[in-house]
Amino acid sequence: MTPVSDVPVRYQLIRKDTLSGARLGRVTTPNGAFDTPAFMPVGTQGTIKGLLPDHVAATGSQCILANTYHLMLRPGEKTVAALGDLHRFMAWPGPILTDSGGFQVFSLADINKVTDEMVVFKSHIDGAMVELTPKRSIHVQNDLGADIIMAFDECPPGDAPWEVQRRAVDRTLRWAEKCKVAHQRPTEQGLFGIVQGGVNEDLRGECAQKLIEMDFPGYAVGGLAVGEGFDAMKKVLGFVTPMLPENKPRYLMGVGFPRDIVTAVLTGIDMFDCTIPTRNGRNAYAFTAAGAIRIRNSRFTKDTGPIEEGCDCYACRTFTRGAIRHYFFAGEMLGPMLVSLHNIRFYQRLMADLRQSLADGTFTRFVENDPRCRLGPAAPAEDV
Amino acid sequence: MTPVSDVPVRYQLIRKDTLSGARLGRVTTPNGAFDTPAFMPVGTQGTIKGLLPDHVAATGSQCILANTYHLMLRPGEKTVAALGDLHRFMAWPGPILTDSGGFQVFSLADINKVTDEMVVFKSHIDGAMVELTPKRSIHVQNDLGADIIMAFDECPPGDAPWEVQRRAVDRTLRWAEKCKVAHQRPTEQGLFGIVQGGVNEDLRGECAQKLIEMDFPGYAVGGLAVGEGFDAMKKVLGFVTPMLPENKPRYLMGVGFPRDIVTAVLTGIDMFDCTIPTRNGRNAYAFTAAGAIRIRNSRFTKDTGPIEEGCDCYACRTFTRGAIRHYFFAGEMLGPMLVSLHNIRFYQRLMADLRQSLADGTFTRFVENDPRCRLGPAAPAEDV
Ligand SMILES: [Zn+2]
Ligand SMILES: [Zn+2]
Repeated sequence: MTPVSDVPVRYQLIRKDTLSGARLGRVTTPNGAFDTPAFMPVGTQGTIKGLLPDHVAATGSQCILANTYHLMLRPGEKTVAALGDLHRFMAWPGPILTDSGGFQVFSLADINKVTDEMVVFKSHIDGAMVELTPKRSIHVQNDLGADIIMAFDECPPGDAPWEVQRRAVDRTLRWAEKCKVAHQRPTEQGLFGIVQGGVNEDLRGECAQKLIEMDFPGYAVGGLAVGEGFDAMKKVLGFVTPMLPENKPRYLMGVGFPRDIVTAVLTGIDMFDCTIPTRNGRNAYAFTAAGAIRIRNSRFTKDTGPIEEGCDCYACRTFTRGAIRHYFFAGEMLGPMLVSLHNIRFYQRLMADLRQSLADGTFTRFVENDPRCRLGPAAPAEDV
Repeated sequence: MTPVSDVPVRYQLIRKDTLSGARLGRVTTPNGAFDTPAFMPVGTQGTIKGLLPDHVAATGSQCILANTYHLMLRPGEKTVAALGDLHRFMAWPGPILTDSGGFQVFSLADINKVTDEMVVFKSHIDGAMVELTPKRSIHVQNDLGADIIMAFDECPPGDAPWEVQRRAVDRTLRWAEKCKVAHQRPTEQGLFGIVQGGVNEDLRGECAQKLIEMDFPGYAVGGLAVGEGFDAMKKVLGFVTPMLPENKPRYLMGVGFPRDIVTAVLTGIDMFDCTIPTRNGRNAYAFTAAGAIRIRNSRFTKDTGPIEEGCDCYACRTFTRGAIRHYFFAGEMLGPMLVSLHNIRFYQRLMADLRQSLADGTFTRFVENDPRCRLGPAAPAEDV
């Protein structure tokens, strides 16, 4: 085992909820700490779309995410390294996490071949064939220089049969071992293992157990929110999360709506990332406690109120709904900028309130009573 | 004459250059003052493209401009008024200027008919026929609520023959009178007259003289930078600007490159607006004292320097050239946001330095020695 003093990413458990698996904590990285449960905004290509870093920080975001798949293709990890690593590149001095490229390769890429050794896919930038192996993924992430990096995993669709999930777990475990060996900066970047296995408890259990034996500084649950449905996700998390070591951070990848996050926190998950706040923001969908509103709706034309009454974000402090609606119709960047900003702040206010309720010992009551905790992908509450 | 105490826009002459017509001053409006010579960034549709107001303020901009033509068509002046006027709409509590729509109608619109009474054109939003009269332009501007509003003028192309300029001056004078009569908020918004006449001294002189007799709180020179060329513009300004009252602000509309601005300041112009910094910024052209650089150029791929060494703007303090280049290639909003921000700050640093040299009595020397004062539309200095 790696000596504790050399582990670059550490978890401090501050308080455990008495009625659920939920926990208040703090993750320390070489570039600062962040409070958990934490939501990490996604900067796919090295920028949280439409936001300057000072506004990202103002939303209360402490750790952000960038995508290995996109950055290795453009501008290339060597270019990012030459420009001083992702912290300098993105102008984000705090904690950064990169994924492994696994999820993107399996969900976005034009795949040419998958073997037990590698995935070969066609670059969407220039059509070139690209080989991604566990080793390559880690070396790319070593160059990008994030504080938390992820093992390269195989992520099948949510409805894939048991046999496909079985093979994915085998590969994910073999690849996790290879990632560990390939990791060139183990005292500077914390490498997390990823539990796969779909909705199958046998596979999830085996995958988690074997990864735990490999002793990673943190663990992620992958392969959820890929079409298996809310109830299945809840069931898997209820089974897997408690298996994960209590003294290490637990990260649910790519999830989700507030309802999904709260459900996962109840099982003991600490970290989340999702593109929903920014993607919805660019499409003029704004989160409010009463449900999503579509700012393009004509009823907002002369609305002098903020996106959400009581929100302390820059958009809500500064602009009327009517003006923001205009910016969307006029094709101005300001519309997407403002609603993305609001949505990320909406998520961060919810996370801060979840943490506060954990600190106060009122978590279960908060989850039952706060309407934000029930916001899912349902139709926007246009008539609220 | 309007009693001085009721004039909403006033000019204070602080210091006059001994070797030129240049002057240091301050313009006071109902929503604050700004120092002159001043550069006003353009928010065509109610937003300086890609910039949040707090970043616009951080560039040192004190007064901003919005376009009546665009805002009357979308979202409509009544909507802006219902949302609390342009200051609230744009989230800009300081001074705002709106143009009259005249320049846009004559240069951008699909014109159906021009008479001595009105211009009829086809809306680019919905194809509807729109009538714009002097009265309508002023009433729209009364609803928009800017601090400085402009008379509705006819602006012919720079190469229009004398007869066309003659007719334009006649209409501009007749319309200026009508604008004055139509103005419903004369103690809250300062209405400026616009001198037309092309490159003809006889027409410029007559137009200026008659407008001065009408006693506007400020005067603009229009119909320049419309194809007449730099030398012709310089000649016209050298003739017209000294004719304008010394105790009122003088505004050169839609100009221009730093060289043009400096040339106009030498004749005694106080106010400028131009879309060049933001339009060039969106196209990845960044101003530097050594000339424009194209951030997309491959030589910047691994450049760890700021856009311009020594610039104190957010973009230069925060991001490398290499990263900004990547954001342009990746189609991310961040690229246009950062270079627009830098370019506006570049203009505002130049204006501040011009003002400082006027305060110090070193203006002529500054203009002769500072390379920024010679930046025109020449080919970008890619090889500097
Ligand atoms: Zn908000
Ligand atoms: Zn700069």
